[in-house]
Amino acid sequence: MTVGIIGLGLIGGSMAIDLKRRGFADRIIGVESNSINASAAGKIGLVDEVVSYETCVEEADIVVVAVPVGAAVKMVSDILDRFQTAGAKEKIVIDTCSTKEQIALATHYHPCRGQFVSTHPMAGTEYSGPWAAMPNLFDGRACIFANPEESSPKALKTIEEMYDVLNMRPIYMNASSHDLHTAYVSHISHVTSFALALTVLDKEKDEKHIFDLASGGFSSTVRLAKSNADMWVPILTQNRDNVLQVIDTYLEKMTQFRNAIADFDEEGIRSLIEDANRIKKIIR
Amino acid sequence: MTVGIIGLGLIGGSMAIDLKRRGFADRIIGVESNSINASAAGKIGLVDEVVSYETCVEEADIVVVAVPVGAAVKMVSDILDRFQTAGAKEKIVIDTCSTKEQIALATHYHPCRGQFVSTHPMAGTEYSGPWAAMPNLFDGRACIFANPEESSPKALKTIEEMYDVLNMRPIYMNASSHDLHTAYVSHISHVTSFALALTVLDKEKDEKHIFDLASGGFSSTVRLAKSNADMWVPILTQNRDNVLQVIDTYLEKMTQFRNAIADFDEEGIRSLIEDANRIKKIIR
Repeated sequence: MTVGIIGLGLIGGSMAIDLKRRGFADRIIGVESNSINASAAGKIGLVDEVVSYETCVEEADIVVVAVPVGAAVKMVSDILDRFQTAGAKEKIVIDTCSTKEQIALATHYHPCRGQFVSTHPMAGTEYSGPWAAMPNLFDGRACIFANPEESSPKALKTIEEMYDVLNMRPIYMNASSHDLHTAYVSHISHVTSFALALTVLDKEKDEKHIFDLASGGFSSTVRLAKSNADMWVPILTQNRDNVLQVIDTYLEKMTQFRNAIADFDEEGIRSLIEDANRIKKIIR
Repeated sequence: MTVGIIGLGLIGGSMAIDLKRRGFADRIIGVESNSINASAAGKIGLVDEVVSYETCVEEADIVVVAVPVGAAVKMVSDILDRFQTAGAKEKIVIDTCSTKEQIALATHYHPCRGQFVSTHPMAGTEYSGPWAAMPNLFDGRACIFANPEESSPKALKTIEEMYDVLNMRPIYMNASSHDLHTAYVSHISHVTSFALALTVLDKEKDEKHIFDLASGGFSSTVRLAKSNADMWVPILTQNRDNVLQVIDTYLEKMTQFRNAIADFDEEGIRSLIEDANRIKKIIR
């Protein structure tokens, strides 16, 4: 089996490592539009060969689109067109994007829709590029299959097997539920981290103080603020409506906190904190 | 040297472990007002003996006050009173609180002020109680000495040696600067985490979705929301003015983000993210 990976960054590169060493793919070819990253991916040995986009789509049995979500929407449709033209009925394309509804809409009526499996492997770090790729990134994490009933049973089964090799737990969901839930459990965390970094950088002009005083708690809360704009601008715009709804709830909660502190309302602060503590039941 | 620790939780308990095993203290006695925690601390062996408050102040050469900041303000003054009455001029008391200005004001005119060293060892986890105590908690972290010029040189030197044994980096600062800076690099992180937990718990009535979908990013951003109300209510009220100022800046930044997303202003979102990315220069 030849797997072709378009976008040799954190997700694509990490997939390449484990699909090869765990024997799912005999050959891994990769496409990378940034020439520095392409050269690095070759030198690191993430893939057997860095090839052109056309060659990748032609030679791979499974094409993994692991590029930011704006580009991915167009690319998946283009790849399905190429499958159709070539009469390549056995080939499969998947995406790995963090928002699913727009890509679902864009492909819904495509005659080769069955050959597309829309997935979101929920793993990552705040780093990007081929240098961020690592083995075992996906182990034990959830992989969402969006609108799985639109894929052919055979394509779906192959990709389920692929994620099983990556040790991921499959979760099946429609694309719009996915976008709503990820707004809550992923996208908002990034926005709150970005806002925290902006606040601290704005006020602490003397960066040495941040460096000296930053506790482990601050570092973990602000970690996601290192995340890449190329990835996050399209996620936040494509999932605009859900993200706005979450931000508005968040602003309400933050304002409740603010007012309780302003009023020296110790009981109010305590009750907000104890309510928030319920997260212990869910997150280890 | 006998060290007496009042409050055998995360901070006090972890200090007990390392001061004993690294040979700074020959004997460690402890005070714990919660009887379940006291019994646990004894069984875990955090201290050589759990004693009464009076015995602790009488027998210890150094008294470490490691209780929530509201209680600590009164307790440190009371301990200085007892030193004075007993003519115990060699004894030292320290606090370990996360806010420093009120305790500085409360002790400033005390005749035994020189015997008090006000410190903030900036280490911790989101857990509390004697079960949360652990070896090596303080290694490599910063310890702030607030208004060190008000302590006698001898008392200051002893406590510097004590924190050196705990492998902490000393930083000297006046109490009001401390409270301003920690509002930025510690207190606000807790408030943003509490608000995040409240938002997600409010919207995701079905907790299974949070559990299934929560990525590593969400977990690290929301981790501090497990923090204890007994500790955080007094910190947030004692440091009210600084915390409010930071929350207000934070609300502004969050609103800028919200508006850029609402307007599909991709350049605006990109520029906010890239600004926030500057945190990379400071936090590893």
